[in-house]
Amino acid sequence: MKKNILIIPGDGIGQEVTTWGKQVLEAIAQKHHHEFVFDEAIMGHTAIEATGNPLPDETLEKAKAADAILFGAIGHAKYDNDPSAKVRPEQGLLKIRKDLGLYANLRPILLFDELLDASSLKPEVLRGTDILFFRELTGDVYFGEKKRNNDNTFASDLMNYHRYEVERITRKAYEAARTRSKKLCSVDKANVLETSRLWREVVQEIAAEYPDVETEHMFIDNAAMQLVKNPKKFDVVLTANLFGDILTDEASQIAGSMGMLASASIGDGTGFFEPIHGSAHDIAGQNKANPLASILSAALMLDIAFGLQEEAKAVTTAVAETLKAGWRTGDIANADTPQDKILGTNEMGQKVLE
Amino acid sequence: MKKNILIIPGDGIGQEVTTWGKQVLEAIAQKHHHEFVFDEAIMGHTAIEATGNPLPDETLEKAKAADAILFGAIGHAKYDNDPSAKVRPEQGLLKIRKDLGLYANLRPILLFDELLDASSLKPEVLRGTDILFFRELTGDVYFGEKKRNNDNTFASDLMNYHRYEVERITRKAYEAARTRSKKLCSVDKANVLETSRLWREVVQEIAAEYPDVETEHMFIDNAAMQLVKNPKKFDVVLTANLFGDILTDEASQIAGSMGMLASASIGDGTGFFEPIHGSAHDIAGQNKANPLASILSAALMLDIAFGLQEEAKAVTTAVAETLKAGWRTGDIANADTPQDKILGTNEMGQKVLE
Ligand SMILES: CC(C)[C@H](C(=O)O)[C@@H](O)C(=O)O
Ligand SMILES: CC(C)[C@H](C(=O)O)[C@@H](O)C(=O)O
Repeated sequence: MKKNILIIPGDGIGQEVTTWGKQVLEAIAQKHHHEFVFDEAIMGHTAIEATGNPLPDETLEKAKAADAILFGAIGHAKYDNDPSAKVRPEQGLLKIRKDLGLYANLRPILLFDELLDASSLKPEVLRGTDILFFRELTGDVYFGEKKRNNDNTFASDLMNYHRYEVERITRKAYEAARTRSKKLCSVDKANVLETSRLWREVVQEIAAEYPDVETEHMFIDNAAMQLVKNPKKFDVVLTANLFGDILTDEASQIAGSMGMLASASIGDGTGFFEPIHGSAHDIAGQNKANPLASILSAALMLDIAFGLQEEAKAVTTAVAETLKAGWRTGDIANADTPQDKILGTNEMGQKVLE
Repeated sequence: MKKNILIIPGDGIGQEVTTWGKQVLEAIAQKHHHEFVFDEAIMGHTAIEATGNPLPDETLEKAKAADAILFGAIGHAKYDNDPSAKVRPEQGLLKIRKDLGLYANLRPILLFDELLDASSLKPEVLRGTDILFFRELTGDVYFGEKKRNNDNTFASDLMNYHRYEVERITRKAYEAARTRSKKLCSVDKANVLETSRLWREVVQEIAAEYPDVETEHMFIDNAAMQLVKNPKKFDVVLTANLFGDILTDEASQIAGSMGMLASASIGDGTGFFEPIHGSAHDIAGQNKANPLASILSAALMLDIAFGLQEEAKAVTTAVAETLKAGWRTGDIANADTPQDKILGTNEMGQKVLE
């Protein structure tokens, strides 16, 4: 199989971790006789520094032409502390999601037995948890009109959804639910928000097409609570952009660390694969970041974008073996991990490769 | 001291739990020689059934005239599953918050040592946690204009904030931080939302007036994660209406159960005291609900509305003693709790009274 893969390292630890996602893809290509052709492009703070634009045209063109994209992370503290900055790294990520029509963000919460103790949740609460989030990615308060009045006494963001936006991701989520435990939980705030009421209406309609899937509707506040209280009760979780952003980060603690979670953004064109962690500038360049989320993002790419299930499985197995052998990066180590089992980014990547 | 207290039981378990909040207030009045005069009013589903209006004028008038309000809970499954319902119980709660100018919702996450095991978080993660949330309550996407187009293909909610709305709650939060550990964390999504950028600007400005308080800004997704990972790192948390709704429900798992958490809504007029749990229709009328959140709401009323610190302390001590004696309602029991220590709503209320 021949595929063109675009690597966009982005900001902060993005560079360090995508190197390992890429190396794993190279190893898979060699072993399974595929030809993966790599190219690289810039985005975010890195792109602002180089061109003034968080998503240069060249990057967008390369992205459209590629078969799949492996992305790192975005963001820089400089902008966070300057609320008035007009050009911001995140605009690059939001624009590429929109322009590539990446409307469904899949975030599997994969629990490795070896990491049960790395979580702040009790092992008995965690054991057996297996959640697949479907987060909508091109609508909501992320893309609605933003306003600020001249004297800075008022600001607003429009939260909005079109019916078709809800429909297409809902169908994807139900299709996935069919291949899993046939349970879907849709999360909204329909007791307060009009967008949520439209969301719930659409989900109810589509639910009727999938009578074999059990549907539950839950308010976001309750969901944020239940996810800590009893994560096992969830299987496929379907939700809007903002609520999905919050819930999936929260859920990362189920997997022990954000450093473990991969995500796939899919839509009508090129698929986009990225860790759910951020740019973590505080540890960037220190060989401390956990490369596993990037490696697992590569596995998702093999599975979802290329349909290479066996190859994807080989990668997740390699990750599981590495964990079983006791190797840890700092974020997933616990008090009982011996010092000499704690690895840097590169050493951890190397272990998985082996 | 003479005070007029309005009881609004609301819906579902609201009636059962406020009875106990009220009885505790009566007991305090008798023991400490105060005169508390009680009146009652309807709101929510109960009020819709009786009058067609979730917040009847009579209730609003009584509320304005009272010295403090003890509220139960609101909501009914009937409306949740009918996204097109025009009249909804929650409108009553939102309107009373707006009309009474209750802009600051204080939610203390009080950890009773006896309940360390009731949480799904590890005891060592929890121990020592003490968080005071300041949730803004009269702005945000809750009150902005809501739209739905005629053919139901589009819906929107306006998320908005005025500078003065951010200022007034920020000041309250900083004042509180001064009396505690002098640490304040403001939660927003300033990398995406214009309202959050205004929020952050205002907090930064006011922070300068409180140089003795250490200020941190955190994105909501990160905060939802950190709250599970390391709740101890938080002290005063300041946030907008929607984010506060989500984070405080999530944080309820720190305290072991939603059934333990009280809240105080304050502003320019009458203070409003309520549990953070909802109407829980699934257990309503079954003598199963945990009355402690309502009792602790009464304690907050004594403290915040009436300045009766000693009396408030007496109530929280009574709750702690009851827990120490091993008494539990179902929600805060754990696997090791002997069956005969698990009480119904009334028996639990009675224990605290004693
Ligand atoms: C960086 C930011 C814009 C982004 C988001 O909120 O979508 C990130 O948090 C994510 O979850 O991918
Ligand atoms: C019932 C609902 C409108 C309300 C809210 O979202 O504010 C509730 O969840 C709360 O937290 O008091």
